[in-house]
Amino acid sequence: MSVVKYGDNVLVYIDEKRRFLIKVKSGGILGTDKGFIKHDELVGKTYGDSIKTSQGFKAYIYKPLLIDYQYVITRKTQIIYPKDAAFMIYLSGLKPGAKVLEAGVGSGFLTISLANFVGDTGKIYGFDINPKHLQVARENLEKIGLLDRVVLNEGDVRKGVELSDLDAVFYDLPDPWNALETAYKILKPSHPIIVYVPTVNQVEKTVIAMRKNKLFEDIHVYEILLREYDVEEGATRPKTTMIGHTGYIVFGRRSK
Amino acid sequence: MSVVKYGDNVLVYIDEKRRFLIKVKSGGILGTDKGFIKHDELVGKTYGDSIKTSQGFKAYIYKPLLIDYQYVITRKTQIIYPKDAAFMIYLSGLKPGAKVLEAGVGSGFLTISLANFVGDTGKIYGFDINPKHLQVARENLEKIGLLDRVVLNEGDVRKGVELSDLDAVFYDLPDPWNALETAYKILKPSHPIIVYVPTVNQVEKTVIAMRKNKLFEDIHVYEILLREYDVEEGATRPKTTMIGHTGYIVFGRRSK
Amino acid sequence: MSVVKYGDNVLVYIDEKRRFLIKVKSGGILGTDKGFIKHDELVGKTYGDSIKTSQGFKAYIYKPLLIDYQYVITRKTQIIYPKDAAFMIYLSGLKPGAKVLEAGVGSGFLTISLANFVGDTGKIYGFDINPKHLQVARENLEKIGLLDRVVLNEGDVRKGVELSDLDAVFYDLPDPWNALETAYKILKPSHPIIVYVPTVNQVEKTVIAMRKNKLFEDIHVYEILLREYDVEEGATRPKTTMIGHTGYIVFGRRSK
Amino acid sequence: MSVVKYGDNVLVYIDEKRRFLIKVKSGGILGTDKGFIKHDELVGKTYGDSIKTSQGFKAYIYKPLLIDYQYVITRKTQIIYPKDAAFMIYLSGLKPGAKVLEAGVGSGFLTISLANFVGDTGKIYGFDINPKHLQVARENLEKIGLLDRVVLNEGDVRKGVELSDLDAVFYDLPDPWNALETAYKILKPSHPIIVYVPTVNQVEKTVIAMRKNKLFEDIHVYEILLREYDVEEGATRPKTTMIGHTGYIVFGRRSK
Repeated sequence: MSVVKYGDNVLVYIDEKRRFLIKVKSGGILGTDKGFIKHDELVGKTYGDSIKTSQGFKAYIYKPLLIDYQYVITRKTQIIYPKDAAFMIYLSGLKPGAKVLEAGVGSGFLTISLANFVGDTGKIYGFDINPKHLQVARENLEKIGLLDRVVLNEGDVRKGVELSDLDAVFYDLPDPWNALETAYKILKPSHPIIVYVPTVNQVEKTVIAMRKNKLFEDIHVYEILLREYDVEEGATRPKTTMIGHTGYIVFGRRSK
Repeated sequence: MSVVKYGDNVLVYIDEKRRFLIKVKSGGILGTDKGFIKHDELVGKTYGDSIKTSQGFKAYIYKPLLIDYQYVITRKTQIIYPKDAAFMIYLSGLKPGAKVLEAGVGSGFLTISLANFVGDTGKIYGFDINPKHLQVARENLEKIGLLDRVVLNEGDVRKGVELSDLDAVFYDLPDPWNALETAYKILKPSHPIIVYVPTVNQVEKTVIAMRKNKLFEDIHVYEILLREYDVEEGATRPKTTMIGHTGYIVFGRRSK
Repeated sequence: MSVVKYGDNVLVYIDEKRRFLIKVKSGGILGTDKGFIKHDELVGKTYGDSIKTSQGFKAYIYKPLLIDYQYVITRKTQIIYPKDAAFMIYLSGLKPGAKVLEAGVGSGFLTISLANFVGDTGKIYGFDINPKHLQVARENLEKIGLLDRVVLNEGDVRKGVELSDLDAVFYDLPDPWNALETAYKILKPSHPIIVYVPTVNQVEKTVIAMRKNKLFEDIHVYEILLREYDVEEGATRPKTTMIGHTGYIVFGRRSK
Repeated sequence: MSVVKYGDNVLVYIDEKRRFLIKVKSGGILGTDKGFIKHDELVGKTYGDSIKTSQGFKAYIYKPLLIDYQYVITRKTQIIYPKDAAFMIYLSGLKPGAKVLEAGVGSGFLTISLANFVGDTGKIYGFDINPKHLQVARENLEKIGLLDRVVLNEGDVRKGVELSDLDAVFYDLPDPWNALETAYKILKPSHPIIVYVPTVNQVEKTVIAMRKNKLFEDIHVYEILLREYDVEEGATRPKTTMIGHTGYIVFGRRSK
């Protein structure tokens, strides 16, 4: 199980900036600016092993983790970053076997995270109005081997969807306030909606709409900031650059 | 399934500061400074319903989510907050069915989160050197109904443990640098260790120890800051108070 | 100069939470929950000296700094905190001798800071519509000995003021967008306006108004976060609590 | 006074990224990638006016503010950013006429800020061990017209300096803990030292040294984070990028 086989997804790690997620295939070549690596050389190696590129640089062979997918998926839209995806999933209390709706799917990075945590007994109903996004999301999910946990639909959740008794709803929409009734209808009572929006104005409109018709209660708005640190003996400090903003997270529980 | 029964865990929500997690039992009484509620009155209600306390205050009946447990568990130690637990779990790429080690268990709040995400096919091996912590953790896990996913052990992980092929290791220890060899031995190759420490000095010592013997690679240090917002139409702003610091998160992948 | 005399403002510092700014007078008594101190005992001491309270606690005698005034002024309104006042003053490029307008004055804490930096050749024209605020500000400025640098006026700057050729304008108003024309008229060309507002909505309205009539250019919006640290050998970390939000700072240069 | 003359320092502002501080001289040319501007065209214009570059781009003519100097000084060393300089100066309670020591001077950006606030009756005693830094600082101060408020010295403050009765001491040194006795000797009793260091380890060493010999009291450690906002009607949010870290600020009052 810890030996690389043809068909495996493998993270080839040369350095902080050079991380490559590949599906190992016979005759395949991974080309990098630090030299190339033949896929065939990877087969039979143990995860954690390192090999050399054609230019002699050390390359580690890692089993991909959830966080590695952000670097390797095709992106057609702004993704929801791990710091936000992590907190959104935690807030939702997602469990193995859960059935959830996600709209819009975009490039499918949050979809991948959701699919990871619901396991093979769960299901993600993913909606997007843009068929090109859905195509990209489908390819990303397929590459990572999680497509069977996801049902992708072209459709506008603001107009309602044919689902019910869901455990959670995740929205990454420009106007989530127009899709609150849909969320209300398809959620189990007292189950959570998690909305992700980039601007303060969207936060305000969403929260006011959630309160107005009393469809949701216990509303909270969060922002997550992530700092990374550089560690050297006697010279430890936060990194000089950081991401200043991604988006806000709005939480609510479906009222009765 | 969405109707309250005897034996259910229920979140009774009166307001932001008054959240009570109870196990519904015949003849039980929930006393609050806004009046009491008879457990028997809750039975048969739908989640999302509200009832009145003896003083006439509205109380919502919610199905507890993962985030609700932070308010209701008995605490003998500082807990790892949801913002940190969420990112630690995400970083680990935890999947349903995963087998992981956690040390020290403390009051068991991270244990609860881990147990939620590994599902009933996974297993948490929880260690602590303090039997009183283990007793509290056991009671908290039992109250929430997740004890069957957890094996609690009194023991010092710095001296090694009888486990192998784990998917992830989580440390909340005063001196995690003394337990890195244990983590190395019990992790599958290339699988992650996630360390939580409150001070910068502990971060430095941990990272230097991880590098020194090359037991771990791709080391990263993170700090998560959480801001909450008050939303009013035309008057939206971050909350005046926030938690300034909890701890740092150190990530590494076991090398070969 | 470094010996305490009658009439001096003195900071008596017992500990982090017990800081008292007093004007030393014959026969005066400073009462605290750690014992009292007779003013007469302070006279003749050198700044930096310590004495004992009646209960035997050590009390340091410090010359007050600008930052000490936040703890001692009478507050009728929310003050602008040092972290914000500092950046506002820096942004304005305030110089000794500068003439500036401030509205509303509130309790006068920003006024004190402005008066400190413009020196005895500068002048602060302070406006407020509330005579009670002006009275409190007057008393605070008098106590600190800076009233001669300040002209306090009861008046509504939205209706215009009889001033011209000012070096900077500082606004802490609920609706600064209604007072932009006044600022434009009284500022020297290309000189700055600095606006402080607590909500994002006020930021938006202010900036849009500044752009709309092109009265101001080079507009920037800032937020300052301050973290404090607890230092112990081998256990250094940020403080557990911090102020999560005070206000936003909007900067612009008067166009021609 | 508000008309551009030969010899004036002028900020030519084309856009957010194109800010040029020039000293206007006969026959001078400012070349930019948006076209050139002849200095002679600026003379006689009012501050706040705009002119066109040779390629037809609008360029505003602003009177330089303190914050503008960060973009135009020659940098040989990392500068202390405005967010930090502002708070350091505020903490020091700097007044017009103050006499202060600064070491090391580096490129002189903090020196410029200090010179601005002490006015023409104050004095900055600037030390650096590197004559090249001093030369750069001298040129920067001369360009801005503040050199007469500054005495630059090549020297090692750890070995002591021939000064006394200073109002404040500012250190930006790799090992400030080795220069605390010097600061103690030259400060007036109870006056402040302000230390700027980039790493947590330096913070810890500085604070422990300050406590050890009781040379300084009321010690505080601060970190300033600055967020900027993008404002659009209905789409206001923090900027995507921000500076994650510059340095820490340590404050103390000289004990007796």
